[in-house]
Amino acid sequence: MNEGRLFGLGVGPGDPELITLKALRYLRAAPVVAYYVGKDKRGNALTSARPHLRPDQILLPLVYPVTGKKPAPPYDYEGAMRAFYDEAAEQVAGHLEAGRDVAALCEGDPFFYGSFMYLHDRLADRFATEVVPGVCSVVASASVLRTPLVYRDQRLQVLAGTLPEERLTELLSGVEAAAIMKLGSNFEKVRRVIVKLGLQARALYVERATMDGERIRPLAEIAPESVPYFSMILIPGERWRG
Amino acid sequence: MNEGRLFGLGVGPGDPELITLKALRYLRAAPVVAYYVGKDKRGNALTSARPHLRPDQILLPLVYPVTGKKPAPPYDYEGAMRAFYDEAAEQVAGHLEAGRDVAALCEGDPFFYGSFMYLHDRLADRFATEVVPGVCSVVASASVLRTPLVYRDQRLQVLAGTLPEERLTELLSGVEAAAIMKLGSNFEKVRRVIVKLGLQARALYVERATMDGERIRPLAEIAPESVPYFSMILIPGERWRG
Repeated sequence: MNEGRLFGLGVGPGDPELITLKALRYLRAAPVVAYYVGKDKRGNALTSARPHLRPDQILLPLVYPVTGKKPAPPYDYEGAMRAFYDEAAEQVAGHLEAGRDVAALCEGDPFFYGSFMYLHDRLADRFATEVVPGVCSVVASASVLRTPLVYRDQRLQVLAGTLPEERLTELLSGVEAAAIMKLGSNFEKVRRVIVKLGLQARALYVERATMDGERIRPLAEIAPESVPYFSMILIPGERWRG
Repeated sequence: MNEGRLFGLGVGPGDPELITLKALRYLRAAPVVAYYVGKDKRGNALTSARPHLRPDQILLPLVYPVTGKKPAPPYDYEGAMRAFYDEAAEQVAGHLEAGRDVAALCEGDPFFYGSFMYLHDRLADRFATEVVPGVCSVVASASVLRTPLVYRDQRLQVLAGTLPEERLTELLSGVEAAAIMKLGSNFEKVRRVIVKLGLQARALYVERATMDGERIRPLAEIAPESVPYFSMILIPGERWRG
């Protein structure tokens, strides 16, 4: 019997219609559909893909050991995540060894800050693997915010809000264009940096772009405790008056 | 009579199957399909969209006044481009005023270094406009190169190969992850910077990712005069051994 193949499928930023034809074709052909999901959550990748599933597909949820705020030491967060990714890879490998193709759902794009990368790193040398790129949250946010993002030879920086305040300050000084992801509990710190650097007039905020519950609001009005993980600040490049 | 609506549709990086369901739906519904194209060229955006077109759609090519190498002064390149974008916008506006929806095809994503932005800047205040994001060349290149691009809190820089050598050297010093676009005649300069900074073992090269004629080759073996505009160098982030 032949081994199954692993497909990493970008399902796009949220709206089920923002999946590509290619990802949809592979998704519908796979007997097993794997997806990461937080404890007691539905999983955004699954929500995007659900309208496209067939009723006979096997669902394989890969449930994160921790969701939301990172537990403080002595809890070994890194170790727990490593063990989780090992275990997730073995669950997927079980289906592949049994000859079943596995479609792994990836929010946005599989290779752009996605947990699929940890499956890929563990399995791509062992099994035939194909990755289908997807619409990532950065460009999806620009479309929702109705703003061109980068012109001509402008530099775009994609930054994680988890970075220390000093580092963010350094990277955003004299910024041409930037997308700041992974806000959540980092929002207040990121906003402070933006205000300090005088960038608030350029900065645009959106949460859950293209998903249910999408919301655009002025940066100054956001209550930090309300900011979800799926939120983004864009600092678009200056318009080229071509 | 109602005015038409303007749709900026990301058709993805090249492969016609990498269009989203949403862009396809709008594309097939529009009576007019506009696209940028070089003189005597077919146009990559049209090539990606062509399998999806209906035979009765009006094609509106917007033909660049200059293709390839920028003419030297006294030719006023900036002025010529500005006049061209003005004229292109008026051609599109003509259809919109006549009540016909226009689908503008955009390689990759409409707001990510695309010429659609110049239509948007001129027309979005005058006509109802909607933008559908697309799979951009950066993530498409990562999928073709089979490499995760950015892990965790790594910073991704997207750079244009058109930048001066000193600036590229500065930006790529100590780089975490980068995508360098717009290579073409800038390739030799970019490679020199990469070698100078000792990054050649990390740098991956692909041309025409997901298009016909896609090619992956080691950076050291590239003949600079053979490098097309649609080529990319990726410096992926260091693997997180999670």
